[in-house]
Amino acid sequence: MRIRVINPNTTRAMTATIEQCALAVAGQDTLLDAVTSETGPASIESHYDEALSVPGLLAAIRHGEAAGVDGYVIACFGDPGLDAARELAAGPVVGIAEAAMHTASHLGRGFSVVTTLGRTAGRAADLAERYGMRRFCRGVHACELPVLALETDPDARKIVTEACRTAVAADGSDAVVLGCAGMAELCAHIRAEIGVPVIDGVAAATLTVQSLLTLGLRKSGRGEYAAPPPKPYTGLLASFGS
Amino acid sequence: MRIRVINPNTTRAMTATIEQCALAVAGQDTLLDAVTSETGPASIESHYDEALSVPGLLAAIRHGEAAGVDGYVIACFGDPGLDAARELAAGPVVGIAEAAMHTASHLGRGFSVVTTLGRTAGRAADLAERYGMRRFCRGVHACELPVLALETDPDARKIVTEACRTAVAADGSDAVVLGCAGMAELCAHIRAEIGVPVIDGVAAATLTVQSLLTLGLRKSGRGEYAAPPPKPYTGLLASFGS
Amino acid sequence: MRIRVINPNTTRAMTATIEQCALAVAGQDTLLDAVTSETGPASIESHYDEALSVPGLLAAIRHGEAAGVDGYVIACFGDPGLDAARELAAGPVVGIAEAAMHTASHLGRGFSVVTTLGRTAGRAADLAERYGMRRFCRGVHACELPVLALETDPDARKIVTEACRTAVAADGSDAVVLGCAGMAELCAHIRAEIGVPVIDGVAAATLTVQSLLTLGLRKSGRGEYAAPPPKPYTGLLASFGS
Amino acid sequence: MRIRVINPNTTRAMTATIEQCALAVAGQDTLLDAVTSETGPASIESHYDEALSVPGLLAAIRHGEAAGVDGYVIACFGDPGLDAARELAAGPVVGIAEAAMHTASHLGRGFSVVTTLGRTAGRAADLAERYGMRRFCRGVHACELPVLALETDPDARKIVTEACRTAVAADGSDAVVLGCAGMAELCAHIRAEIGVPVIDGVAAATLTVQSLLTLGLRKSGRGEYAAPPPKPYTGLLASFGS
Amino acid sequence: MRIRVINPNTTRAMTATIEQCALAVAGQDTLLDAVTSETGPASIESHYDEALSVPGLLAAIRHGEAAGVDGYVIACFGDPGLDAARELAAGPVVGIAEAAMHTASHLGRGFSVVTTLGRTAGRAADLAERYGMRRFCRGVHACELPVLALETDPDARKIVTEACRTAVAADGSDAVVLGCAGMAELCAHIRAEIGVPVIDGVAAATLTVQSLLTLGLRKSGRGEYAAPPPKPYTGLLASFGS
Amino acid sequence: MRIRVINPNTTRAMTATIEQCALAVAGQDTLLDAVTSETGPASIESHYDEALSVPGLLAAIRHGEAAGVDGYVIACFGDPGLDAARELAAGPVVGIAEAAMHTASHLGRGFSVVTTLGRTAGRAADLAERYGMRRFCRGVHACELPVLALETDPDARKIVTEACRTAVAADGSDAVVLGCAGMAELCAHIRAEIGVPVIDGVAAATLTVQSLLTLGLRKSGRGEYAAPPPKPYTGLLASFGS
Repeated sequence: MRIRVINPNTTRAMTATIEQCALAVAGQDTLLDAVTSETGPASIESHYDEALSVPGLLAAIRHGEAAGVDGYVIACFGDPGLDAARELAAGPVVGIAEAAMHTASHLGRGFSVVTTLGRTAGRAADLAERYGMRRFCRGVHACELPVLALETDPDARKIVTEACRTAVAADGSDAVVLGCAGMAELCAHIRAEIGVPVIDGVAAATLTVQSLLTLGLRKSGRGEYAAPPPKPYTGLLASFGS
Repeated sequence: MRIRVINPNTTRAMTATIEQCALAVAGQDTLLDAVTSETGPASIESHYDEALSVPGLLAAIRHGEAAGVDGYVIACFGDPGLDAARELAAGPVVGIAEAAMHTASHLGRGFSVVTTLGRTAGRAADLAERYGMRRFCRGVHACELPVLALETDPDARKIVTEACRTAVAADGSDAVVLGCAGMAELCAHIRAEIGVPVIDGVAAATLTVQSLLTLGLRKSGRGEYAAPPPKPYTGLLASFGS
Repeated sequence: MRIRVINPNTTRAMTATIEQCALAVAGQDTLLDAVTSETGPASIESHYDEALSVPGLLAAIRHGEAAGVDGYVIACFGDPGLDAARELAAGPVVGIAEAAMHTASHLGRGFSVVTTLGRTAGRAADLAERYGMRRFCRGVHACELPVLALETDPDARKIVTEACRTAVAADGSDAVVLGCAGMAELCAHIRAEIGVPVIDGVAAATLTVQSLLTLGLRKSGRGEYAAPPPKPYTGLLASFGS
Repeated sequence: MRIRVINPNTTRAMTATIEQCALAVAGQDTLLDAVTSETGPASIESHYDEALSVPGLLAAIRHGEAAGVDGYVIACFGDPGLDAARELAAGPVVGIAEAAMHTASHLGRGFSVVTTLGRTAGRAADLAERYGMRRFCRGVHACELPVLALETDPDARKIVTEACRTAVAADGSDAVVLGCAGMAELCAHIRAEIGVPVIDGVAAATLTVQSLLTLGLRKSGRGEYAAPPPKPYTGLLASFGS
Repeated sequence: MRIRVINPNTTRAMTATIEQCALAVAGQDTLLDAVTSETGPASIESHYDEALSVPGLLAAIRHGEAAGVDGYVIACFGDPGLDAARELAAGPVVGIAEAAMHTASHLGRGFSVVTTLGRTAGRAADLAERYGMRRFCRGVHACELPVLALETDPDARKIVTEACRTAVAADGSDAVVLGCAGMAELCAHIRAEIGVPVIDGVAAATLTVQSLLTLGLRKSGRGEYAAPPPKPYTGLLASFGS
Repeated sequence: MRIRVINPNTTRAMTATIEQCALAVAGQDTLLDAVTSETGPASIESHYDEALSVPGLLAAIRHGEAAGVDGYVIACFGDPGLDAARELAAGPVVGIAEAAMHTASHLGRGFSVVTTLGRTAGRAADLAERYGMRRFCRGVHACELPVLALETDPDARKIVTEACRTAVAADGSDAVVLGCAGMAELCAHIRAEIGVPVIDGVAAATLTVQSLLTLGLRKSGRGEYAAPPPKPYTGLLASFGS
């Protein structure tokens, strides 16, 4: 069983962290690796960045299909390109926001999301709605740390932890969903500090894909997720055509 | 890691089937067993049956807690007693309707539920709403086979398969959720026959609990799922007090 | 016309209070009595208590049917076992949360619910959704008094009154729904104190059942509320089978 | 206790029928009468008619207030002027669509509305949403009989009965709500014919108002339903100013 | 192309202001005028006022139709009589709340409404829901100035501006919708002061009607907006019959 | 006032048609042109195509900003890249699905969408929800013509017209929204044939942008639509960084 975690930004250091968090939960029979997108933004902090991370993500899926990968994790909390990736891949593709929110819904009656910049909060709320998780999502809170500062700011751990504590109190929620792949390695620390379940989507999505593969399930080939109709592409993205 | 699957009806033959379907997907390090409720209805086909299956279910959880069980599956598609079970157990508790619907939402844009008697369709729809899955659930269809006939009626496999085929066509859906634990062993057959993902909640919930345990997550002890306040109980159910 | 109010907890003193509040509004031609559940928790303060109050409630309905009772009130704000009770009874069954919320919706644009312990607030919110009253329900507020303290704590009246006053101000609501049968006798006092409509579900549900009977209406025997299919029950609850 | 049923169209024959249906259910201590609007359309079959029935309705409320009426029923299924009437009256005001839908929600899991002309179906659906009853309202069906034909067309009873039968089958519903005050007297007949609960809003609203008065409840004077601010009116409607 | 803006209250000074705001945006080929309702309230500040403004509005539509007007704006933020006006007119009719909310939804992810008296906030929220704009409308805030004080109170501009500033901060919104036709001329000032888009519905609705006419679109004559069925009217409103 | 219509696919013939439809409604003072995306798919018929059309679209916006364009139309019914485009542009950006659905909501109580391939129907439904138009959108119907066949198949006009006729009857809708920019020139024909309002999003969005500019409104610079934070981009898309 081969699972690939795709970091849709181009920062390799972040991929390394993500890979470790995924490996920590994957089963013994799972071959798991993480790859970095080959084109696009260094971090994803706007709709613009997110849209422009999708070609790199889809190229990574295409490489994965050729290499026999069975399932994929999209390791950015905006779940960029999820629908397109599902059309392209034969097996399951799961986003980390999707997996984290679903996971939180099994543990309590409501969760808070703690994200990086305030401008990404709307995307998190849109995804909660898309996945049917709006009734569980009691609030989206920004800690106003840029994505890459999560790895470089010496106070990052403290800032995110306090934002989680504040969010739980403000929302009366039972659990916290970490709103950025770059927060994955903070998960255990925050859980210990604030005493409620804290969910990292990278680990959650890895296990979701692994479970789907164990169940023998793949995306539905009927309807909207069937392979995209082949056609010419031109210009910079000509290689995406067929 | 110890997982217990609880059949909340009192029919042992059905428990055996359920146990096999759960064991087929559980990981090597998972100690899994299935138990039959010690009191209540032989099958669950009404709100009345469902309500009266809960004391037996809760007794099984209480035994499990004493025996060091880490997580539980409630193996009836009405997910009876889920909130109460979460209060009682320290670890995760997942219902098969909950797990199956979540699983289906990763694979396509909409699923159909195929259940036993028409009178149970409303409960399935209520659960879809509760779990946030209403936007994915395109229809609930009954095959009008009683629960126990799934194991005794020689035409059961054919009847359920055709109901699934019809449901997918009528709803324009991408996947099928089997609406009864008793249908678990039909899953692979139907998938092969109709060519779309078919989800059995018993297997799906087993992996969901296993994933939650791997992630180190348990129900939130804060708020609504904290242990119930102790108090006297009288009469037939006196043993449930404390 | 015979109406029976069922207190689904086992505290007889509370039944007496409930009966008085119901008798105060029942019509001259209505034969009304209140009964105490014969088994289950002394008070209902968790999902666990609520689930385990249902067998006693259903036994009371069964006795009522044999005794020629025409309609029933379920006198606990969690409306435990409502669907099952409707299957079992030939005539109407109404919960006090259901009746109180409907009643409040005729009087203003939004109401607040004031309940006992915070952990029961989620159930009240679930019921508001189930009954279509979420658009009217602006907030659920706990006064953090245990149910039985309503009758024993000398400050209970003051505490509940102040919680109601605070709730109306916080929610900008027009009315208050009392979130516990044990608050029924405080209703007139609080209304006088805070100057907005205050609704006690015991009285409201009594009149709702009485109205349904006057209209000649009973639960629909078609579909989901038809009598439950007969079947064997085993163990502690064997007497519930047929 | 004085209750007045207002027929907001100007057809006196219809008022007489309505009064009989209301009197048939009112309690012994209730003084009930029905009045006909003094200005507006002979029947209400469009948004235009409905809007223009409101001045007559409000004039009737004003007369009622002067005459010591305690509560009002608005006897047209569009519930015209309900918010304005609640501002004007000191006591409760209930519409027949409102009362009928609430009543139906106590009896089954879903109801069908059967109305007169197809062009009024949208209003019924709007009201279902406004009252929170959309989850119970499975369909709105027109029998395409004009309102006044209900009293004059010799086939009216048969046409409406068949429309109800068809609606229940098409919607899989448990009950029928009659979508016009002019259908009130058909209620018992249709119920007997099709074997499910059939609800006439005139009777249902009469008992709802009577119950509110018995509970000592009136519209909330706080917020949106406070008496309208006095001000000059000019032209045809000058008498409505103050 | 003839567009008529109807002020449904009877205050001519307000009509003059409204006409100026509409003329300022209308195209060169558009013949635009504003008219004052000939009967009804001097200002609209309650459901009562709103309902009683509709006959005057409909009379103005009828005059417009006879005079060859192509499209109409209803210049009160309650959008009184919109459905009835659409039945009566052959061409498009647009309300200012409708146009303003739609316009705001193109500019940001959420807007605040700032209205006059608190008692009108519910109507604004109802309209947001009706138009599908609830997901964009983050709050409705009252500045507690009566409608006519907008033109006479020397502090009106300051009070409304500060209410807008506060609303944006409280709601985290991107834009402001002015909740009264009488605020139209404050629009540019407030926008300059608080630095977010501020939308006046009078101008927005004028351009919406103009666009619909340019597109050759009129209300649909099929279904609910077909001309109302002719019938006798009696009493004060007899002239509205046919 | 300069408006640019961007065709996000790379088929120039389609751009020419789109430009004509936009020019036909633009005002005399509007400088309008249409441009073709310089990279991406020849037509947009999948999530994959849609995602990969966004880089070309954003490049066109960037060129437009440098060239002094005031506002933009995104001329594909999937409204690709709308959020990202709004971050990038200083002025208004409107999608054709967005504009068409809003426009239809002014004309009737419900509309049908007629689109090309069935696999794009889900996207249309998602957009209806995003824009708050789900309550107006009664159905999405595919005519199963590929996008480019709209210009080459000699039966295209007939096929689309019949699909519109069928959709209106099936949905009981009042209006039709054409679900592809390539259908723009069929609009007047279909309207004449089936007798209900038919809306082409290209013309509708052109006028929406023109109206926003006339009103002096631009996207909100506060919050989510502020310019994206600058950062390095690598690989194929390096030129999108800053």
